[in-house]
Amino acid sequence: MPSSIEDRLRIELAERSYDIIVGRNLIGRPEAFSALRAGRHAVVVTNATVDPLYGNALVGSLRQRFTNIERVVLADGEEHKDWSTLQHIFDALLGSGADRQTTLFALGGGVIGDMTGFAAACFMRGVPYVQVPTTLLAQVDSSVGGKTAINHPLGKNMIGAFYQPKLVVSDLDTLRTLPDRELIAGLAEVIKYGPIADIAFFEWIEAHLEALLERDPEALAFAVLHSCRLKARVVEQDERESGLRAILNFGHTFGHAIEAGLGYGQWLHGEAVGCGMVMAADLSLRLGLISPASSLRIRSLVEKAGLPVRCPPLGADRYLELMHLDKKAEGGDLRFVVLEALGRARLERVSERLVADVIDAHSR
Amino acid sequence: MPSSIEDRLRIELAERSYDIIVGRNLIGRPEAFSALRAGRHAVVVTNATVDPLYGNALVGSLRQRFTNIERVVLADGEEHKDWSTLQHIFDALLGSGADRQTTLFALGGGVIGDMTGFAAACFMRGVPYVQVPTTLLAQVDSSVGGKTAINHPLGKNMIGAFYQPKLVVSDLDTLRTLPDRELIAGLAEVIKYGPIADIAFFEWIEAHLEALLERDPEALAFAVLHSCRLKARVVEQDERESGLRAILNFGHTFGHAIEAGLGYGQWLHGEAVGCGMVMAADLSLRLGLISPASSLRIRSLVEKAGLPVRCPPLGADRYLELMHLDKKAEGGDLRFVVLEALGRARLERVSERLVADVIDAHSR
Repeated sequence: MPSSIEDRLRIELAERSYDIIVGRNLIGRPEAFSALRAGRHAVVVTNATVDPLYGNALVGSLRQRFTNIERVVLADGEEHKDWSTLQHIFDALLGSGADRQTTLFALGGGVIGDMTGFAAACFMRGVPYVQVPTTLLAQVDSSVGGKTAINHPLGKNMIGAFYQPKLVVSDLDTLRTLPDRELIAGLAEVIKYGPIADIAFFEWIEAHLEALLERDPEALAFAVLHSCRLKARVVEQDERESGLRAILNFGHTFGHAIEAGLGYGQWLHGEAVGCGMVMAADLSLRLGLISPASSLRIRSLVEKAGLPVRCPPLGADRYLELMHLDKKAEGGDLRFVVLEALGRARLERVSERLVADVIDAHSR
Repeated sequence: MPSSIEDRLRIELAERSYDIIVGRNLIGRPEAFSALRAGRHAVVVTNATVDPLYGNALVGSLRQRFTNIERVVLADGEEHKDWSTLQHIFDALLGSGADRQTTLFALGGGVIGDMTGFAAACFMRGVPYVQVPTTLLAQVDSSVGGKTAINHPLGKNMIGAFYQPKLVVSDLDTLRTLPDRELIAGLAEVIKYGPIADIAFFEWIEAHLEALLERDPEALAFAVLHSCRLKARVVEQDERESGLRAILNFGHTFGHAIEAGLGYGQWLHGEAVGCGMVMAADLSLRLGLISPASSLRIRSLVEKAGLPVRCPPLGADRYLELMHLDKKAEGGDLRFVVLEALGRARLERVSERLVADVIDAHSR
């Protein structure tokens, strides 16, 4: 393996284990995909933004291993993460003679990864797929753990599957072409791992925020790899989210309600999660779990990263309604990931009154 | 457990293991569902034919265990086994406040079971479900093995998941209200287990065909239980159909092509499989694997059961095209389950020429 392929992280999930490769100039190098069995048919699923940048390079690299490579180019954006786009993937698969050995490649951000993964999970009851994430958010979040889904008009990621990829190739060079807004949205999920699991990582992000925003390759490499490592530790213990894994949803109950309330695609997922973390930290403070100083530290880091810290003024009632529709509401109770301290999180049932107070305090 | 709950078969699939209960008067007895954890919310998915017959009885039995029970009544028929009906289930789930603990009940035949199982597999990335099959086909086939799916315009069961139920309750009394045509279609899958796995069972069916057609309860009880037992033996060794499990598709490559060629819902699945088994037996004969007498014995049993033994005259080219779209075609080759002897099957690549000969010989 050439030295430019810098790091490899193994996600241990018994017979569903797989490698994440993190490095520079990976998409254009056939060696990055050498772990895959050669096959007859590969289908690259990507979008109209990413395809002109990396589509040809990926197809070129796959030519050594696959006889027949098709490309499915979707419209870009969270608002297309729905059944009709998924149908389009299925139509393309069947139209190009896909069978159970056909390998799907998700080339793009989280939306492409979630949809392609779910298509792979369902097509003929499961075909192999590979993630080639091209956004920071996808590299630090959706590349680990096998959560795939599409949205339903009544809720985000309502229809989906736990389905692990065969390989993840995270090419750091793709982050150079990422719009600032998307880089910053991705940082929200990087920041998240600090408060829930690793105080030292939180401090490292505080110290290296400038470097990350300036896209320093070494800082980004560490952020991606360490985020994946922290997420892997959680997912390996609880693949299907029966308990522990829920802590990865820190900020997400507020965040999903913001996204759904505004209509998908208005705020980026990471932006909503950034604001949601500030609100969840405030909730933890109001529950007497963390100090005002800890809550402020989170707010300050989120704000310095350029993420929103105030939510759209939809009214507490509307937010609560959306939260009850969200998957985190079970048995009618609202449950939130709260912080016990910086670096430690747990799931907690919280009264609607307290949640409404937090929403009111953060509505702009 | 009262003595009227006659038999219980355990399907051993590690943490996905579950029981099948086979007996009379089960739907109306809360004890039949005593293996389930009590919960807040249950949703019974059924169709407009079955609901008036057994809907109230099932809901009555579930009242002891679930606070809130909703019913989703779908249109009856294979032509509704599609995404829009699935969406209707998701809409009903979200509209009634379903969460990750909501338990789905599939009350009906194979179409209801396949769709409800797939809805359970995808909804919030997986909620528990229970099969209450009310057709012979569903009791002997879809109740074992966790195959769930919907159809795609280009192929049957193209979109689906392997997803095991928590419990199967096969109430033999439901077979009394089954139309003759459906009973006979179900017999096709019962007959299937003989040639592929159990010559003694094949002989038993030959000897008891009259009793089965007259709906003798003891004959039906043995047929259901033994079919499930034979299928369980195969599925336990190969849950996700990487090899052995494929033998359960005996007659299905021909059968699926007939169903797809005519348009779903014209022939019942079991009718197509019945004819498909006759064709697959002829294929095995032409490959020199079984004797003319064995092939004739299969044809004779299928015919006596009242199942079709000649396929619609769509032309060999059209059939071959449909087969290439079917999941059993891999790497461009057509693969068929063929018989090595009565009671033993294997998967075999077969030339298009030979398949076309079989189709021509059996077209009416």
